[in-house]
Amino acid sequence: MASSEQTAVPNELLRSFALERVLDQDPRARTASLLGQLEGEQVVLLLEKTHFSEAFLQQPTFASLSSLGANDVYNWLLGWQPDGGDPHVKMTLIRPATQAHIEKYTAQKRFMVTESPEVYASVVEPWLKAQPLARIQWVYNILEKKKEAESILYEDADSESGFIVVPDLKWDRRTLSSLYLVAIVHNRALRSLRDLTKEHVGLLRKIQRQALQVAQDKFGLAQGGLRCFLHYQPTYYHLHVHILAADYTSHPGAIVGGAHLLDDVIDLLQLGVDFRSRTLTYSLGERSELLGVLRQAGHV
Amino acid sequence: MASSEQTAVPNELLRSFALERVLDQDPRARTASLLGQLEGEQVVLLLEKTHFSEAFLQQPTFASLSSLGANDVYNWLLGWQPDGGDPHVKMTLIRPATQAHIEKYTAQKRFMVTESPEVYASVVEPWLKAQPLARIQWVYNILEKKKEAESILYEDADSESGFIVVPDLKWDRRTLSSLYLVAIVHNRALRSLRDLTKEHVGLLRKIQRQALQVAQDKFGLAQGGLRCFLHYQPTYYHLHVHILAADYTSHPGAIVGGAHLLDDVIDLLQLGVDFRSRTLTYSLGERSELLGVLRQAGHV
Repeated sequence: MASSEQTAVPNELLRSFALERVLDQDPRARTASLLGQLEGEQVVLLLEKTHFSEAFLQQPTFASLSSLGANDVYNWLLGWQPDGGDPHVKMTLIRPATQAHIEKYTAQKRFMVTESPEVYASVVEPWLKAQPLARIQWVYNILEKKKEAESILYEDADSESGFIVVPDLKWDRRTLSSLYLVAIVHNRALRSLRDLTKEHVGLLRKIQRQALQVAQDKFGLAQGGLRCFLHYQPTYYHLHVHILAADYTSHPGAIVGGAHLLDDVIDLLQLGVDFRSRTLTYSLGERSELLGVLRQAGHV
Repeated sequence: MASSEQTAVPNELLRSFALERVLDQDPRARTASLLGQLEGEQVVLLLEKTHFSEAFLQQPTFASLSSLGANDVYNWLLGWQPDGGDPHVKMTLIRPATQAHIEKYTAQKRFMVTESPEVYASVVEPWLKAQPLARIQWVYNILEKKKEAESILYEDADSESGFIVVPDLKWDRRTLSSLYLVAIVHNRALRSLRDLTKEHVGLLRKIQRQALQVAQDKFGLAQGGLRCFLHYQPTYYHLHVHILAADYTSHPGAIVGGAHLLDDVIDLLQLGVDFRSRTLTYSLGERSELLGVLRQAGHV
């Protein structure tokens, strides 16, 4: 939404906002999600400070300044921006807000759980096999070129060792430092990291090589600029590899206890480690369905 | 620094600031570091938007609002905060700024490098052995209770399988969601993950168990609330384990291609994987000394 589309809104809009509770906040990202009442409706209000504009960085200007202290070469200051300058807050108002909206924006505590091969066989595998196939129909739509065909950056069509590379929907397809692609394999028997053995080294090496080639050819990324990883547990049970810019170091999806570096997976498979016999530890959100299943079975 | 220490600063202070270049910026964190000239001196100016105050979250109030658009239940708005409300920007002015200051706040491109056991033996190990021991004197000071003795949360004094647990200096010792401790082993022969074999499983298990105990007893953290990991490459070559709240998912130090989950390391050692024979892939900043050494040897 360009700023040219901005239209004035009566200042009264938020005057009657009555906070019920702060659903979540991230002081580092300067964001907060609020639940409240507005004119008789339940609403979710998402607040995020805007980033500095280029113009502001060129010439930082403040309506007032105050000093917080100083020590040697360090001076700490607070500044208030003048009115009419950069907007201070970007907001999203969801009105009316449903329970689903409320949950989506509520902080979820995370728990580390440890899954032995026995727990996988007795609890996790039966649970994932019971999931309706419809949940990954969207993946099959991509593989069958029914959807997003125009987005495909590379394809190896082999049904056993082939895969496609597409941009992740979260990426703006421009900013190199947040480059995010995904490789989805054609082999529908491979559900996750758990299914990988030495015979898959060839497939994974091909993905690694082609991901780098695509990122270089299509987006100009330099050698060594990619951090490729698999998730365990994944969001969907069809093997895929996340392809992220190496510079993108604050991405929550790339952290240990969730992400497994593709190079590490290949190295371990080559050393003879069979992921079917590994004990894998990962974090789950408190509202995760799998966490409930594991708890019910007495494993958490 | 409490707000009661604030003193007014002449608005003219930044008027003469002349930008040389933007050293770094993080749009998600709303931060920027600028290099410029101020009254004849080279200065570094660090800008970060402040977080919302509790009072503001209770009753979000704006001097003006404009609409960016709407779609179904979603409304996007920009708001300008009234003067006299929350400060919009927190700053640190470093004046005069040295080359070290400039480098510290300049973005560093990251490169993934792959280290085979042969590259370790021929390039990395000789390089780290040549590092002056003085670089880890501060670690020995902690282990010998010459420094930070009052901070020690737990100690197992065994010289082979013992360790101490201390809060990481980055942690405020209060906020559970950003809890950050570190376990430092007593055994000075263990430099990094590279040195670990099956015989160290006992040591690592003890660290894991005691880290959880300390986090529960001293800070009230719940079961399953910790993400423990080792870095490779580490910042210093004396074996230590990072102990982080599982909720702290945006920490750049916890990502794959750098961090190795302690549970995964234990599992692999138990499966008979010897870290001395692994191929390890990690990211290095473009100004890293080790990257230079690896490049010189023709390995990057």
